[in-house]
Amino acid sequence: MKTHAVGIIMNGVTGRMGTNQHLVRSILAIRKQGGVRITDGETIMPEPLLLGRNASKLAKLAEAHGGLPYTTDLDAALKDSAYNVYFDAQSTLRRYEDVKKAIAAGKHVYCEKPIAATSAEGMDLYKRAEAAKVKHGVVQDKLWLPGLLKLKYLIDTGFFGEILSVRGEFGYWVFTGEHQPAQRPSWNYRKKDGGGIILDMFCHWRYVVDNLFGNVKSVSSLGATHIKRRWDEAGQAYDCDTDDSAYGTFLTDRGIVCHFNSSWCVRVRRDDLLTLQVDGTKGSAVAGLRQCWIQPEAATPKPVWNPDIDNPIDFKAGWELMPANVAYENAFKVEWELFLRHLVLDEPFRWDLREAAKGVQLAELGMQSWKERRWIDVPEL
Amino acid sequence: MKTHAVGIIMNGVTGRMGTNQHLVRSILAIRKQGGVRITDGETIMPEPLLLGRNASKLAKLAEAHGGLPYTTDLDAALKDSAYNVYFDAQSTLRRYEDVKKAIAAGKHVYCEKPIAATSAEGMDLYKRAEAAKVKHGVVQDKLWLPGLLKLKYLIDTGFFGEILSVRGEFGYWVFTGEHQPAQRPSWNYRKKDGGGIILDMFCHWRYVVDNLFGNVKSVSSLGATHIKRRWDEAGQAYDCDTDDSAYGTFLTDRGIVCHFNSSWCVRVRRDDLLTLQVDGTKGSAVAGLRQCWIQPEAATPKPVWNPDIDNPIDFKAGWELMPANVAYENAFKVEWELFLRHLVLDEPFRWDLREAAKGVQLAELGMQSWKERRWIDVPEL
Amino acid sequence: MKTHAVGIIMNGVTGRMGTNQHLVRSILAIRKQGGVRITDGETIMPEPLLLGRNASKLAKLAEAHGGLPYTTDLDAALKDSAYNVYFDAQSTLRRYEDVKKAIAAGKHVYCEKPIAATSAEGMDLYKRAEAAKVKHGVVQDKLWLPGLLKLKYLIDTGFFGEILSVRGEFGYWVFTGEHQPAQRPSWNYRKKDGGGIILDMFCHWRYVVDNLFGNVKSVSSLGATHIKRRWDEAGQAYDCDTDDSAYGTFLTDRGIVCHFNSSWCVRVRRDDLLTLQVDGTKGSAVAGLRQCWIQPEAATPKPVWNPDIDNPIDFKAGWELMPANVAYENAFKVEWELFLRHLVLDEPFRWDLREAAKGVQLAELGMQSWKERRWIDVPEL
Amino acid sequence: MKTHAVGIIMNGVTGRMGTNQHLVRSILAIRKQGGVRITDGETIMPEPLLLGRNASKLAKLAEAHGGLPYTTDLDAALKDSAYNVYFDAQSTLRRYEDVKKAIAAGKHVYCEKPIAATSAEGMDLYKRAEAAKVKHGVVQDKLWLPGLLKLKYLIDTGFFGEILSVRGEFGYWVFTGEHQPAQRPSWNYRKKDGGGIILDMFCHWRYVVDNLFGNVKSVSSLGATHIKRRWDEAGQAYDCDTDDSAYGTFLTDRGIVCHFNSSWCVRVRRDDLLTLQVDGTKGSAVAGLRQCWIQPEAATPKPVWNPDIDNPIDFKAGWELMPANVAYENAFKVEWELFLRHLVLDEPFRWDLREAAKGVQLAELGMQSWKERRWIDVPEL
Repeated sequence: MKTHAVGIIMNGVTGRMGTNQHLVRSILAIRKQGGVRITDGETIMPEPLLLGRNASKLAKLAEAHGGLPYTTDLDAALKDSAYNVYFDAQSTLRRYEDVKKAIAAGKHVYCEKPIAATSAEGMDLYKRAEAAKVKHGVVQDKLWLPGLLKLKYLIDTGFFGEILSVRGEFGYWVFTGEHQPAQRPSWNYRKKDGGGIILDMFCHWRYVVDNLFGNVKSVSSLGATHIKRRWDEAGQAYDCDTDDSAYGTFLTDRGIVCHFNSSWCVRVRRDDLLTLQVDGTKGSAVAGLRQCWIQPEAATPKPVWNPDIDNPIDFKAGWELMPANVAYENAFKVEWELFLRHLVLDEPFRWDLREAAKGVQLAELGMQSWKERRWIDVPEL
Repeated sequence: MKTHAVGIIMNGVTGRMGTNQHLVRSILAIRKQGGVRITDGETIMPEPLLLGRNASKLAKLAEAHGGLPYTTDLDAALKDSAYNVYFDAQSTLRRYEDVKKAIAAGKHVYCEKPIAATSAEGMDLYKRAEAAKVKHGVVQDKLWLPGLLKLKYLIDTGFFGEILSVRGEFGYWVFTGEHQPAQRPSWNYRKKDGGGIILDMFCHWRYVVDNLFGNVKSVSSLGATHIKRRWDEAGQAYDCDTDDSAYGTFLTDRGIVCHFNSSWCVRVRRDDLLTLQVDGTKGSAVAGLRQCWIQPEAATPKPVWNPDIDNPIDFKAGWELMPANVAYENAFKVEWELFLRHLVLDEPFRWDLREAAKGVQLAELGMQSWKERRWIDVPEL
Repeated sequence: MKTHAVGIIMNGVTGRMGTNQHLVRSILAIRKQGGVRITDGETIMPEPLLLGRNASKLAKLAEAHGGLPYTTDLDAALKDSAYNVYFDAQSTLRRYEDVKKAIAAGKHVYCEKPIAATSAEGMDLYKRAEAAKVKHGVVQDKLWLPGLLKLKYLIDTGFFGEILSVRGEFGYWVFTGEHQPAQRPSWNYRKKDGGGIILDMFCHWRYVVDNLFGNVKSVSSLGATHIKRRWDEAGQAYDCDTDDSAYGTFLTDRGIVCHFNSSWCVRVRRDDLLTLQVDGTKGSAVAGLRQCWIQPEAATPKPVWNPDIDNPIDFKAGWELMPANVAYENAFKVEWELFLRHLVLDEPFRWDLREAAKGVQLAELGMQSWKERRWIDVPEL
Repeated sequence: MKTHAVGIIMNGVTGRMGTNQHLVRSILAIRKQGGVRITDGETIMPEPLLLGRNASKLAKLAEAHGGLPYTTDLDAALKDSAYNVYFDAQSTLRRYEDVKKAIAAGKHVYCEKPIAATSAEGMDLYKRAEAAKVKHGVVQDKLWLPGLLKLKYLIDTGFFGEILSVRGEFGYWVFTGEHQPAQRPSWNYRKKDGGGIILDMFCHWRYVVDNLFGNVKSVSSLGATHIKRRWDEAGQAYDCDTDDSAYGTFLTDRGIVCHFNSSWCVRVRRDDLLTLQVDGTKGSAVAGLRQCWIQPEAATPKPVWNPDIDNPIDFKAGWELMPANVAYENAFKVEWELFLRHLVLDEPFRWDLREAAKGVQLAELGMQSWKERRWIDVPEL
């Protein structure tokens, strides 16, 4: 049995996403299953080193998972040749400097999104990584959500005929923190801390649209700070100065209109926290995070407009739930495994730092569109 | 018992809306109930004269309803002093000339929307009517849909707290006519015949938004001709050259963001053909044509983002259907009765030709925004 | 890591409430979680000493929980400087003397309710504790029941508009012990042993009403001994000579009418053993111990009185279950943690012996009202 | 076939109750079924004469039911020997004078409740009727509601064992009229017009309790005007100056405690608009207007107080719906038939004007109790 050990410095794993999705459900889950199996006799085994700024939190996390190694010293870690991969899930504003250091130290890098606060910084990292000949990747987890994999299946099998339009609704009600704790951190609502829903979500919409519906070629976007006062983790009121909702329209090079509403100020009367409705000439689908409902042309009702009577059609009933014919793994873990194979086996991995920079670019252009009140074309990076 | 007879020339009642909504469910329904009751001893009784271009259709319609008078001669009708009201439900492009004639003949006028093909023509009619000192009104039926009356109730009783945003979804799948007949007329998809969904629907959105959420002060809109080839009433293929879908965002002077998708190329997985979701600090509502579902702040769930498991929250279950505590009349009939009272009793009636022109104005600016790819501010008319 | 050990003499923990709620679900649960966390490096750790009159019961209990220290000698315990807190969960009639001793010995005291058999004794304990400069508190657990926390949330967020009235229904069928064992101890039904539902429950209603609906300013109460003969733990019949049901009405200084029925002779056709219905101008709620159902004004049906047909309204369906957006801890444990913080950190703790005496006062005045057949005003203590 | 025609002057039938319950569902229903059948060859046939103050309303009502005779002249009607019964369903304040007149004219009298504004007036009518040797009765419809007939069945068959207590909950939310029309007339909320829920409902509770649970021997009552401003039939705001809610406790000569809440300011989370819960040693029942649920002792659950977990018992599931083994007629019609038999056949009829006066008496004493803040004993009339 041959085992390829891959040492990974995991920076920022004490945060919610870092702990749950990257450490526990990805890296530790891979370790638990015996590594990424290449052949019967060959596997890849990730060896994490936890890194962070709060030693007591780190110690607790390390201990909770069977005594993992940890450190608060980034420079020392980068010098440690046992670890040739640097992973970064810190808050956005810290990412650029530390990833730059890691590249300089010759480490391969894998990063959460947004890759940086600006697309220029993102492209700078891309170029440095290319120049340093290290491998690089970015988390684009939503591509592996079961709901989006089902959409991809429908696209690949021609279910939609010609795709006409996509409606994305993302969001839920984030409590203000006044009467009950908010379920998102307060920095999300402060500009200086890297907050704002456009920066957060347009990175996702970029790769979702690019991968499923064609490259985004222009964007029109309106942001809003609907809720102007919130209460932070300590129960202190603070003013919100960045967008908590965004109304964005994207046109793709395949002529598809993609309208996405993103909001932390909306109550959910739909199938899931994120829903994507795709309408095509031959059929339509509505995908949530995990489920997907379809209505082929032949099952499409022909409603008559008659507001005098309660609608006789049960519009929900005319849709069919797609069966789960394959087992779906955690989306983060799927991409980690692909990246590990890319590292060890040199398999292709197209979700690289340039793609990461594209996400930040769409956020930037979305903000520009909002400010200049017009459509903005998307230049190539 | 005193009866105020009001003679009404009804032009264009052989069309679907004209027959069903205006003639049968409004004017004839009012006649059947004994007129519009003013007091125990006084009523208003509408006396319709059917007018149109197709004599045989008219004769059939007149006979089907007990032998109503009818004519194909507009000029003669306008000279008949037994009829002092002119109602117009013709196709849009015929309206301006005929309404102008009616005003010149000293008739009070009541019209379907869009009042004209341009807001300039609409304002021209308004000014002529004012100069001629005739009374005038426009159909804005959606204001009296039970679903929207329920929304208004929620607004009036302060249910929403501060209103943040409105999401409108209108539309359904209009078949192309290739394999089964289309359920809308083919002129809807030809520019020269007055087609296009922006012209059709933005007239509605203008008064809905103005009346419920504040005056529209700017608009950003994208139109699209998603389906480029359809089959007409005779089974002949034709090219579609005007918008069949529109993605519009409206900002109101109360700071509310209203995003409305309108489409004849969308399959319906929602509560109704038209749904309006209103989100406010204290609660949210989703209104359909007749029903309305609400979720107060205290019933708002706090979802946790965990795409690894099927969502544990039934997002539909957390909404309550508003009870129907009052009986709702046909929306068209309600407005007809108000207009008849306006005619006879001089009661105020604010849905006049200027309001009608505002609807056309929003459609025009929506098309301008689409063409110029930017936000357009809405000037006062 | 700094640990503040707090030694607690726990008197009366062999009883049902003492064992389950105070020892197991509060003190031992706090120990299991690593104490009450103050900061990352500082905690409070309770160290219990079990005290009681039945050595064998005590031994068994101590052993069942990992060999806790125990004793039957109160005086010796009070001399032991390792324990500076005295907790009392004995039967009511023993409490006054033992708490008095504990205060005299300089211990901080924390007590079950009723604090004493009379409010005079209760106030005497309060004054002694103040004079001795020891800290003191009383169990008012219902304030931290999830159902009541949800009510408080609704009050704090203004859900009710103006609160008009409160209906409390508490109780269930306590079997007589004749054909199957009773589920409450027989002393509950004997006056000389401190029994009676007014003394038991009015202590609770006092702090529930004071904290949620305004200070009780007058009371009208009727007691009843509905069931006059019961069978005790040994299967022996005995006469009941104290109230097993009470019908009480409380008026608060905020003008809210609170009517509470308390009974051990009632079968339950409601949502829970305790339900509180609160009606306000903007909405109503019905809270059980853990759940809470709400009906905002806009969801309120308008029933028509028509006894000729089965009611067409499903009155239960028009209520929405409040979601559990926060995790709720055991109510007793929550208060214990607050008291431990009060001891060590001197944080405010308003549920003190004076509040405890107020509970007994309401019970006394309730009994006086019953006897004198009139409303009684509540004087300040 | 022998037919006993009974001419009935029906005063006040243009009101809601008068039209629906007395005219349509009672007298006309009896006529439709061919009268009250005595034997195969003998029936009683009521012959109504409609009487009122509004001629046009009367004419419309008379015409709607096949051209019934009507008049606005009470004195003339009382002189007409074709009508020997006078029925009164006017608003309360008009009743005393007109019934007095009818008795003086030698008519038998049958009246809605409250019989008068005071029990003294009520007893005066009783004495006058006795002196004039005319027959007399009062509407006590609730006794014949299916739900209460089922309760009576349970009492008669010994289901309850010893009855301990009765909880009555009556009421629903009467809208204020501000945002949607109120469903009760505005005079209900003005003292000078005979309004107030105590006067309205205690008349009912008197005969319900007297007939089912023993004669009321003392009363404690609290009234409240929870909502102080309402909007009348014309949309005008007015101040409410009489009780819209009442919290009453009645003790009966059989030692049963009956607590009744009556309110127009309460939202309904129960089985019906009126529910009566009866608890007895052998079983309990909850009756609504038409249905009744029962729980015998052997089906009684033994709940354990554990607020740490959601209650494991479904408290509603442990009750059984009583089957409708007999057909139930409209309650008003049943009593009308009994009164007609009393008139023609001299069968006993115990719901006479003295019973009517008792209802008003309980309302008076309820108001006195409220004012004097004490229990009031009920003297014999």
